[in-house]
Amino acid sequence: MPTATALLTDRYELTMLAAALADGTAARDCVFEVFARRLPHGRRYGVLAGTGRLLEALPGFRFGEDELSALRAQGLTDERLLDWLADFRFSGDIDGYAEGELFFPGSPVLTVRASFAEGVLLETLALSILNHDSAIASAAARMVAAACERPCIEMGSRRTHEEAAVAAARAAHLVGFGASSNLEAGRRYGVPTTGTSAHAFTLLHDDERAAFRAQIDTLGVGTTLLVDTYDVEQGIRTAVEVAGPELGGIRLDSGDLPTLAARARQLLDSLGATRTRVIVTSDLDEYAIAGLMAAPVDGYGVGTSLVTGSGAPTAGMVYKLVERDGVPVAKRSEGKNSVGGRKSAVRRHAADGTATAEVVSSSPILPSDGDRDLVVPLVRDGELCDHASPAQALRTARDHHARVREALPAEAWALSRGEPALETVPA
Amino acid sequence: MPTATALLTDRYELTMLAAALADGTAARDCVFEVFARRLPHGRRYGVLAGTGRLLEALPGFRFGEDELSALRAQGLTDERLLDWLADFRFSGDIDGYAEGELFFPGSPVLTVRASFAEGVLLETLALSILNHDSAIASAAARMVAAACERPCIEMGSRRTHEEAAVAAARAAHLVGFGASSNLEAGRRYGVPTTGTSAHAFTLLHDDERAAFRAQIDTLGVGTTLLVDTYDVEQGIRTAVEVAGPELGGIRLDSGDLPTLAARARQLLDSLGATRTRVIVTSDLDEYAIAGLMAAPVDGYGVGTSLVTGSGAPTAGMVYKLVERDGVPVAKRSEGKNSVGGRKSAVRRHAADGTATAEVVSSSPILPSDGDRDLVVPLVRDGELCDHASPAQALRTARDHHARVREALPAEAWALSRGEPALETVPA
Repeated sequence: MPTATALLTDRYELTMLAAALADGTAARDCVFEVFARRLPHGRRYGVLAGTGRLLEALPGFRFGEDELSALRAQGLTDERLLDWLADFRFSGDIDGYAEGELFFPGSPVLTVRASFAEGVLLETLALSILNHDSAIASAAARMVAAACERPCIEMGSRRTHEEAAVAAARAAHLVGFGASSNLEAGRRYGVPTTGTSAHAFTLLHDDERAAFRAQIDTLGVGTTLLVDTYDVEQGIRTAVEVAGPELGGIRLDSGDLPTLAARARQLLDSLGATRTRVIVTSDLDEYAIAGLMAAPVDGYGVGTSLVTGSGAPTAGMVYKLVERDGVPVAKRSEGKNSVGGRKSAVRRHAADGTATAEVVSSSPILPSDGDRDLVVPLVRDGELCDHASPAQALRTARDHHARVREALPAEAWALSRGEPALETVPA
Repeated sequence: MPTATALLTDRYELTMLAAALADGTAARDCVFEVFARRLPHGRRYGVLAGTGRLLEALPGFRFGEDELSALRAQGLTDERLLDWLADFRFSGDIDGYAEGELFFPGSPVLTVRASFAEGVLLETLALSILNHDSAIASAAARMVAAACERPCIEMGSRRTHEEAAVAAARAAHLVGFGASSNLEAGRRYGVPTTGTSAHAFTLLHDDERAAFRAQIDTLGVGTTLLVDTYDVEQGIRTAVEVAGPELGGIRLDSGDLPTLAARARQLLDSLGATRTRVIVTSDLDEYAIAGLMAAPVDGYGVGTSLVTGSGAPTAGMVYKLVERDGVPVAKRSEGKNSVGGRKSAVRRHAADGTATAEVVSSSPILPSDGDRDLVVPLVRDGELCDHASPAQALRTARDHHARVREALPAEAWALSRGEPALETVPA
């Protein structure tokens, strides 16, 4: 049974619907588009994430007896509205960028074509999911880039809403994080999960040696021991004494990491533990990761800054009516204006395969060599176009992201603030 | 049936548990404490929120067949661990600050006394909920203060994870927001919901007049009309022509709000709509709200900055083992150190009722006149101490918050960065 998602919705969607049902405009053919007016904080690209979760949520977007009673209890008692909602299931079309695709200002990442009634209802849920997941994926992609080939682990569940944590683990894996601490992300999406121990485990024991012994006995010598509860150097010595030189890894979770990592590596090598990995995890973000590039670090665990979007916790996407009965429409007063009309979008590439522009147009785009159409069908007549499992959909999005990021020009990978790596241009 | 929450958990809680079950330390009596080492960004106080949601989630924190299969599938195959989890229900004690209470660096906002096994399992879920909800409540409280007595409406659902949106609506209401756009928050927590229309509703119609007519016909003249789709002045004239001078409100969602609000008020008054409210909603945060204090504004709708914690999207709380078999314990290496031992806490007040200090101590606190004990029992032997409904619990927390914030010294309400309004001192 799909989870009930219909009330994860702003009340104004329903008051608009009630008024539109009353005057007959609810049936008008509409096109709504999701796009970001700009990228946050001088970011150079965004990563679209959440499309798969939105498609998962769609079948459960129904108004059963419980939902209708809840609406009545909140004063939404218009019987025409409630009757309409009781029969509602989405029957329109949805197109969009493939999940994992890059986006730029104005990229039409999701397009809903339906009656006004059906299209307006999806606004809140679509934006909640895409804004959150894309914010996390966009931050995580910068961390993966900063880490170069070193593995990144998502471990931010404790720093965000418990359900957002699952979505964040999914978004991080989508852009290349190898694993997550979150068990529910493992269950729902097949994200590989990992974890060993916290300071509490060492403090639970009479001494560090007993804690390490217990961990090795249960998890094997391939485990990662947390060595900074008391004294780091002594912790490393004890770890190697207990586990032997085959110890899988040590973890450093505090202090000046570049210095500590270098000293830890040297000490491990001197103890013969030359293959023991050094994992660091203390308040990392993309800048700290980049700052550790010269340090002998074998993996990064990232928490807070990942699940909060590293300064940009929401992606700034909006859901706008752009066409009504075939006529382009757009807000026209001061500020926040949009371009009317349903958009097409291609990514333009140079002969060497490097992306050069995001072409977005409400007129048809004349295809050039090296253009890649960015918009794919997701839902037709209310039916999902693809019946992949959530885990399969995530793998597909992960592969897609890995492919398309390769085409970005080199300046896109700079962490400093700058302009979008691709300019959004008309056809 | 309670929602299954057990896998909203970091894997390392289970690997620690497995190792502790193997060496017998899992049964040791432990005390874990939740506290924030510091307030974010020069904030002067924090507001504890989420306790009620944590207590709601506790009965569902069980490992049924589905959860155990999911763990096996992720390689957690230790039979001793799985057997223990199958029988697990939390049987310990939980104390904490009342929800809605203010907190300061080191305030012991939640204390879990249980075996290591039972206590360690709750870490992730407790921190996810308290860190998220307290971040939102702490930001929202500043907005309520900046708005003085003017009403605030939470409308950020579209800018955060769809479930975080419900929790954010709850947290905002807790600290004094009057209403939310989020229908699910209405259903689960009795938060009053509100909403009228978006630009899409105007664009759907052939002209603004038709849109206003439709909205008035269905929602009555007491509704709020969005007047900035085309030209604000013309929008206001049309609104009053259609609704008459009894129009409930107009909403401004773009442009330079102080100027626009003043012009709108003047125009409304000149049209005889002297009681029509002016509601503003465009990218507000506590600073923008304060900047509108001199403008004739009757209400604020707050979205993005509220649900993202206005620059501090997580509360920085940690969950630390502080006592094991009656012995205080604490991490001792460089950085991130804690004070061992279970804490008591009182808030000290001057004779005029103004709070003067947060007294936190691992020794008993000798009570003075004007001390208020901050720690209340929440769970005893695994049973909730209070069986209030979620909506009742929220009302209680809201009342508590309104009471205790009155005692803060005046400088606490400054929006500028500063030191915590109360110093945390030992007994």
